[in-house]
Amino acid sequence: MPRTLTLDEVSKHNSQSSCWVIIKDKVYDVTEFLPDHPGGAKIILKYAGKDATSAYEPIHPPDALDKHLPREKHLGVLDSASATAVKDAAQNRPKTKDELRVEAAQATKPPLSRMLSLRDIEDVARQVLSYKALAYYASAADDELTHQENIRAFSRFFFHPRVMRPVSQCDPSTTILGYKSSIPVFVSGAALARLGHPLGEVNITRGCARTGIIQMVSSNASLSYAQIAEARVHPSQPLFFQLYKHRDDRIAEQRVREVVALGYNAIFLTVDAIVAGNRERDIRAPFELEEQEREADKADERKGGGKAAADIPAKQKDGEGVNLLGTAGALIANDDLDMTWEKTIPWLRSVTKLPIVIKGIQSVQDAVLAAEAGVDGILISNHGGRQLEYALPGIEVLYRLRKQRPDVFDRLEVYIDGGVKRGTDVLKALCLGAKAVGMGRPFLYAQSAYGEDGVVRTVDILKREIVTGMRLLGVQTVNQLVPEMVCSL
Amino acid sequence: MPRTLTLDEVSKHNSQSSCWVIIKDKVYDVTEFLPDHPGGAKIILKYAGKDATSAYEPIHPPDALDKHLPREKHLGVLDSASATAVKDAAQNRPKTKDELRVEAAQATKPPLSRMLSLRDIEDVARQVLSYKALAYYASAADDELTHQENIRAFSRFFFHPRVMRPVSQCDPSTTILGYKSSIPVFVSGAALARLGHPLGEVNITRGCARTGIIQMVSSNASLSYAQIAEARVHPSQPLFFQLYKHRDDRIAEQRVREVVALGYNAIFLTVDAIVAGNRERDIRAPFELEEQEREADKADERKGGGKAAADIPAKQKDGEGVNLLGTAGALIANDDLDMTWEKTIPWLRSVTKLPIVIKGIQSVQDAVLAAEAGVDGILISNHGGRQLEYALPGIEVLYRLRKQRPDVFDRLEVYIDGGVKRGTDVLKALCLGAKAVGMGRPFLYAQSAYGEDGVVRTVDILKREIVTGMRLLGVQTVNQLVPEMVCSL
Amino acid sequence: MPRTLTLDEVSKHNSQSSCWVIIKDKVYDVTEFLPDHPGGAKIILKYAGKDATSAYEPIHPPDALDKHLPREKHLGVLDSASATAVKDAAQNRPKTKDELRVEAAQATKPPLSRMLSLRDIEDVARQVLSYKALAYYASAADDELTHQENIRAFSRFFFHPRVMRPVSQCDPSTTILGYKSSIPVFVSGAALARLGHPLGEVNITRGCARTGIIQMVSSNASLSYAQIAEARVHPSQPLFFQLYKHRDDRIAEQRVREVVALGYNAIFLTVDAIVAGNRERDIRAPFELEEQEREADKADERKGGGKAAADIPAKQKDGEGVNLLGTAGALIANDDLDMTWEKTIPWLRSVTKLPIVIKGIQSVQDAVLAAEAGVDGILISNHGGRQLEYALPGIEVLYRLRKQRPDVFDRLEVYIDGGVKRGTDVLKALCLGAKAVGMGRPFLYAQSAYGEDGVVRTVDILKREIVTGMRLLGVQTVNQLVPEMVCSL
Amino acid sequence: MPRTLTLDEVSKHNSQSSCWVIIKDKVYDVTEFLPDHPGGAKIILKYAGKDATSAYEPIHPPDALDKHLPREKHLGVLDSASATAVKDAAQNRPKTKDELRVEAAQATKPPLSRMLSLRDIEDVARQVLSYKALAYYASAADDELTHQENIRAFSRFFFHPRVMRPVSQCDPSTTILGYKSSIPVFVSGAALARLGHPLGEVNITRGCARTGIIQMVSSNASLSYAQIAEARVHPSQPLFFQLYKHRDDRIAEQRVREVVALGYNAIFLTVDAIVAGNRERDIRAPFELEEQEREADKADERKGGGKAAADIPAKQKDGEGVNLLGTAGALIANDDLDMTWEKTIPWLRSVTKLPIVIKGIQSVQDAVLAAEAGVDGILISNHGGRQLEYALPGIEVLYRLRKQRPDVFDRLEVYIDGGVKRGTDVLKALCLGAKAVGMGRPFLYAQSAYGEDGVVRTVDILKREIVTGMRLLGVQTVNQLVPEMVCSL
Repeated sequence: MPRTLTLDEVSKHNSQSSCWVIIKDKVYDVTEFLPDHPGGAKIILKYAGKDATSAYEPIHPPDALDKHLPREKHLGVLDSASATAVKDAAQNRPKTKDELRVEAAQATKPPLSRMLSLRDIEDVARQVLSYKALAYYASAADDELTHQENIRAFSRFFFHPRVMRPVSQCDPSTTILGYKSSIPVFVSGAALARLGHPLGEVNITRGCARTGIIQMVSSNASLSYAQIAEARVHPSQPLFFQLYKHRDDRIAEQRVREVVALGYNAIFLTVDAIVAGNRERDIRAPFELEEQEREADKADERKGGGKAAADIPAKQKDGEGVNLLGTAGALIANDDLDMTWEKTIPWLRSVTKLPIVIKGIQSVQDAVLAAEAGVDGILISNHGGRQLEYALPGIEVLYRLRKQRPDVFDRLEVYIDGGVKRGTDVLKALCLGAKAVGMGRPFLYAQSAYGEDGVVRTVDILKREIVTGMRLLGVQTVNQLVPEMVCSL
Repeated sequence: MPRTLTLDEVSKHNSQSSCWVIIKDKVYDVTEFLPDHPGGAKIILKYAGKDATSAYEPIHPPDALDKHLPREKHLGVLDSASATAVKDAAQNRPKTKDELRVEAAQATKPPLSRMLSLRDIEDVARQVLSYKALAYYASAADDELTHQENIRAFSRFFFHPRVMRPVSQCDPSTTILGYKSSIPVFVSGAALARLGHPLGEVNITRGCARTGIIQMVSSNASLSYAQIAEARVHPSQPLFFQLYKHRDDRIAEQRVREVVALGYNAIFLTVDAIVAGNRERDIRAPFELEEQEREADKADERKGGGKAAADIPAKQKDGEGVNLLGTAGALIANDDLDMTWEKTIPWLRSVTKLPIVIKGIQSVQDAVLAAEAGVDGILISNHGGRQLEYALPGIEVLYRLRKQRPDVFDRLEVYIDGGVKRGTDVLKALCLGAKAVGMGRPFLYAQSAYGEDGVVRTVDILKREIVTGMRLLGVQTVNQLVPEMVCSL
Repeated sequence: MPRTLTLDEVSKHNSQSSCWVIIKDKVYDVTEFLPDHPGGAKIILKYAGKDATSAYEPIHPPDALDKHLPREKHLGVLDSASATAVKDAAQNRPKTKDELRVEAAQATKPPLSRMLSLRDIEDVARQVLSYKALAYYASAADDELTHQENIRAFSRFFFHPRVMRPVSQCDPSTTILGYKSSIPVFVSGAALARLGHPLGEVNITRGCARTGIIQMVSSNASLSYAQIAEARVHPSQPLFFQLYKHRDDRIAEQRVREVVALGYNAIFLTVDAIVAGNRERDIRAPFELEEQEREADKADERKGGGKAAADIPAKQKDGEGVNLLGTAGALIANDDLDMTWEKTIPWLRSVTKLPIVIKGIQSVQDAVLAAEAGVDGILISNHGGRQLEYALPGIEVLYRLRKQRPDVFDRLEVYIDGGVKRGTDVLKALCLGAKAVGMGRPFLYAQSAYGEDGVVRTVDILKREIVTGMRLLGVQTVNQLVPEMVCSL
Repeated sequence: MPRTLTLDEVSKHNSQSSCWVIIKDKVYDVTEFLPDHPGGAKIILKYAGKDATSAYEPIHPPDALDKHLPREKHLGVLDSASATAVKDAAQNRPKTKDELRVEAAQATKPPLSRMLSLRDIEDVARQVLSYKALAYYASAADDELTHQENIRAFSRFFFHPRVMRPVSQCDPSTTILGYKSSIPVFVSGAALARLGHPLGEVNITRGCARTGIIQMVSSNASLSYAQIAEARVHPSQPLFFQLYKHRDDRIAEQRVREVVALGYNAIFLTVDAIVAGNRERDIRAPFELEEQEREADKADERKGGGKAAADIPAKQKDGEGVNLLGTAGALIANDDLDMTWEKTIPWLRSVTKLPIVIKGIQSVQDAVLAAEAGVDGILISNHGGRQLEYALPGIEVLYRLRKQRPDVFDRLEVYIDGGVKRGTDVLKALCLGAKAVGMGRPFLYAQSAYGEDGVVRTVDILKREIVTGMRLLGVQTVNQLVPEMVCSL
């Protein structure tokens, strides 16, 4: 029987020396946790003695407090009057300009059936996403040139289509690590889906089930690994796990064992994001948003409108609150910076028998080392341009690998991600030897804009584009796609 | 003596279970045809029990109903009162905003003599074409990058002009499959000319006669093959036929025998458009147009203006009406996806003795296979960028063919199309070995903007540009144009 | 004693059957000349029976009528009352919008001393030139891409500057065909200087004298060759002659003998402009100007202003008046299209002992043929991009000549023109082996904007830029500029 | 005991024949100095007989008059009434529009903590700098293409990051000529820091001390070499000296001996700026500013505002006042144009035992000559694009040096500067063999916008970007950065 607490009681613990917060009517003492919070103490102290649910929920899986806060810090539950008061306050809180903007965008977005391309869906998502969510999803390293280059790189490759070949039978399906996939595309791990939609990653899980493709779940998902596993439509629906390895091998092992137990089917060990990339757009978002709200309020006042709608702090003078980690950095603050081929692969093999894929290969040399280390696959990726600015785009690395070390393709499966927008992009990668192509942001955008149906539509569009492209290239199956069909202009 | 029907009677057959439509005062029962209509049942049902003439005419040749609808479904003719009522209704129908826009553009277009370049003419056409027609003519695959690249590709090739060579005598004429052509240009097959001008393909036929060039007629022309043949000014005027091969060999054979009987002079077998490219602009056109009209009406109402001019459906909620085939896809829904060199060429040779040209070669390998298959020519084409996005532009394929397999040019005639805008483009292709160059959209635009005279003007402009270019390159005849005169920058 | 005529009398000869015009108070019967007028009969008939001075003067040298119209067609002079009436009418003629615009621009142009670069001067010229003059000066072939590429081509070449070399003594002078030039730049032939400034070519002659560079005079100068020769400041000032060879050898010979007699010092035989390039901007200018004036008048009337200021014809309906030759084409309508190395060079050598330079070489092959023909120099030129669109830019031809046939530089002098805007452009050409660089438009712009002083300023700016560049490259004299100092990026 | 003078007395010496000026209450007779003033006599004569302090101070070090004006021309000091009058006049002088603009920009600039990148800081600096200062700092040669190309050149190089390598320990420090530097970056010599901030170069000196990097001090600093030396926080803080060698060896020697005596630690002999580059923006600044102020005044008057705020001369008619040297040219007017490897290096070795670095190498050949001359290092530099337009960017020269002559890197230290904006730029240069990278403008902007703290922030940002980049490249120390990690796309 949990202890019962009043709002008044909680409100007294509103400082660094004693900091209590309310999340979904439960009260937690996070005083000792403050220095360990990857996102910084400051953001928690903003809610000290108060309800923090709205800020907490979209970026933490529900089991985060159980995993990270000792049992004795779970102090109890609000009494019912307090719970009501908290609920009322949340409901009566005036909406921010950004929330009003999002609501208007949701009300006027076009019907899903009018979405003809992934760009259409992204355009809608950019309208309906909150400023903060868009900044996290869209941001990339430094000046975001690598993110753009990932896209542009595909446009340097052209096709030599073949004609007069039978294509009425055309099958775009493939296997990935032995698992069937209706098209040679999988969902690349992308964190914090609940920033964009209340159902979060589960939209993707269900959409994948309906369309027959495979989801890779991020270590930093905003739902628990169990919740996502439970969302599988059929028990046999495959799920891959994107492992961000904790620096403490025991904690990392615990994470792996958890997903193995839940029935996940492969481990994608992430090696391209051991430290946070410099995602300026993401880092800037909090204070740019603040500035926007302040400007909007001023404009309202000039128009004779009333007071500021939301509680906006006065203009910051010293900027001490700038968190240089950004949302992304906070997520990986405790990851392992010292992984090696010699140490980490054997460790992981000792923990699980699942297939292992190295996510984040960015050079021919490391592709060869991966093959020598005996892993099952590599995902060539520069993390969507979010890590090292000027990391060579995946399709260019793939092109070099094909030319310099074609033997690697026989030793493990090769995937790429980054910059894929169209079926033709997928086909170019397959021509050059990729077994499948990962896509991250497009699925985040799709579920943000249209939930599960958006995910299904995304796959349908891709499938239609891939089949059309295969037929126009003169192939019936994906293994007929060969390097000779692609040239660099 | 056909049966006589009243409008009232027809209007009762307004559903999927019994669907009658009126076309040019004749009544047809299309109920059983609904599932077979390449453009989808929905578009027909919109006119169930009503007059469909205005929607039907510009995109179907007059013999379409005779060819595709059994005799017993031709129910009869409207009685004269009904016919008058239909006519009055058509005349009194308020014009749409788009129709009003087109009328205004027609009234103010510049005189033909001020058209100095093909771009000038295209600019006028873009003003005077209906939204739907422009979407069909201008659209290309996906993001239309290949369409743009077709044009840009020419700009990578520069000339080494030769001087001090006699050029007062300068003859730009050539032969194509043995037929004389006043300039090394022919009209590439382009469907649905009546979308742009009431006289449609016949404008082109007559313009070609007056200027001495050759027209290739599309299987999907908006006039019957016979009407076009009859429009020839001299009986000896050559016509080429662009064959879209039906999946049923007997239907295909019937089509070939028809044009052979009409005196067509060559068959261009189309192999680059066996399935519809993803022409988003074309697919979007219907609902974008709807949106435009609705917005215009709203603006009218705000200005205190009266009711909506035209009958615009309420805002679509679910978008189920989006036809992913687009206009283009509907035209080729029954085409043969399984043509091969081994099977299709001998079949065609068995049906006709006319010269055979393969339209849609996009790789050096297939050019070689075509030569080995013994056809008379190849038209290197990516279908104006309307099919596979990132298919290599024709001039680039030609360049590679010249470098890698110059022998092919001795074994058959080589043509290219796609992206040609200027006489210099034609000359570059001829320097690299093309016998002639096809142009599609420019002639559609020309006849849309200025009818037959626009076609004549287009050829005159090209001829002037070609002759000027030949003289400045130092050549008197087209066979003096050689690869050494062109370099890639 | 010339016959005296009245305005009234002249005005009766206002048709194709009898066409008299007044030029500078003299009356000419041009009826029989109408079909031979290179600019077309129509433009003359506009002035039939009237004073044509203002239209005639800026584009014809004063001796044109003497040279081209038989003596008996020089009918006489106006009587003094008529002359006064003509003069009054000219003065009272309301100014066109374009004339008013030019006047305003002249009144507010910046002082010459603020002109720091050739671009500054061009910017002023573009303001103060009449619409017609700017269209003639600025126009280039087709879409003017070659004109732009001429400029852009220079931007692909970078320097490897050398340091630690003595450069306090730095001499930018050179010789051209043995004649001293203060900088390695000459004025390339450019026609119709009086379109831009009343003194025309003489501004350039005097400016060259003051700065020590050499002028090439066009066959199509708007002053007579004698007037320009007389404008020389010192009798020894060299002048080059740009020969457009008439198709009739005797007329051509007469032209050469005339300039030899006047003391011109070299013949630049023009071979890159035997027919008119397609200069659309120039061709469009007359009717675009008309349109502009009409629009301006309408705007005036809407503002309650009075009647149209100038006599603008009603909107042309059929456009029959479009002269596809443009200003440029008219100038060369009778030129020789059949020159050859075997015939034309010996003919020219037989007429004069002056050095012969071939202007308009555009390929390595022709540079070699020129050397073999024993001429004294070649000017690599695509005629400022005004002739064949996509002719390779001069600096690119020079680069290939240097790489493929360096021996040619030892056999004759090599110059280039086209796209030169800065001292660094000149230096790049010299590094690659050019003896000097021609510039055409910049001098037309300079004299249009600031007369003779503008020409001097242009040379001063170039000299300063060249000397600065030489010092920063580590050279003291132009012959120390070597290919190793330039690389293509 | 200095002589005392009155303002009235001084004011009589207001012409070329007798020109006195007041600087900080002292009176100087500069009549004889007028023709020798590198910035021209005209600018001094503007202040003849008046107080010149405000114009003099920001661009001359305090010891300039002592060094350059004979003792007997130091006439005396103003009496106290005059000094007060001068002070009052200065304070009461109405502010120019540009001064008002700068004040407003200073008042609203964002807090330093919001500066996340060097671009952020530059953006602020561009707001708070005076028009004149920005023109001097930002200007580059001709059309500033080389300045842009310096930046763009880095964007052509991409990384092959390595993964699975331990990077938790990551040390970005290095040594430069044996001196420790916390990151592989030093402050490249950049003149006239007081144009941007009253404390000038000392901001940089102190910022370097706090962050552990090394400052190179320009011969043309706006503080005396002694003042900067005294600003060192620790006596052991290293300082490098950028030597502009005077044409008179004795004066040059005196300059070297002065900095040696002050404890400077290395001599960077500048060879890429022996004459002024053509910095048009800088040359234009005075009259563009004038024009701006005049336009602003006119606008004020139109608004019914009062008189012009500042004393603006009437519109210049002849522009004789345009100083083609610009600020930059004036600074180096007496530099040595005849340095050679044979003469200058031995001379400098004879004057000092300090390490010698050649600043301004721009070709592989000169890098080799420098190695053969036995100097200690080379700084590959095109002077920030401020000297020869189209000089190859430093990173491109470095790339060629690495490919053609890798031995040079073993014989001396190689640095580059120009176009560096990000940590990734630094890392690319180090991969290609640079020991360190110089940055000039970024530090001028930083101290202009935020003084010493701006300098510290700049280094902190770079350090964070460099460490992040090193970890993502898989390296722990700068000497693990190798050419294989970089490719040119």
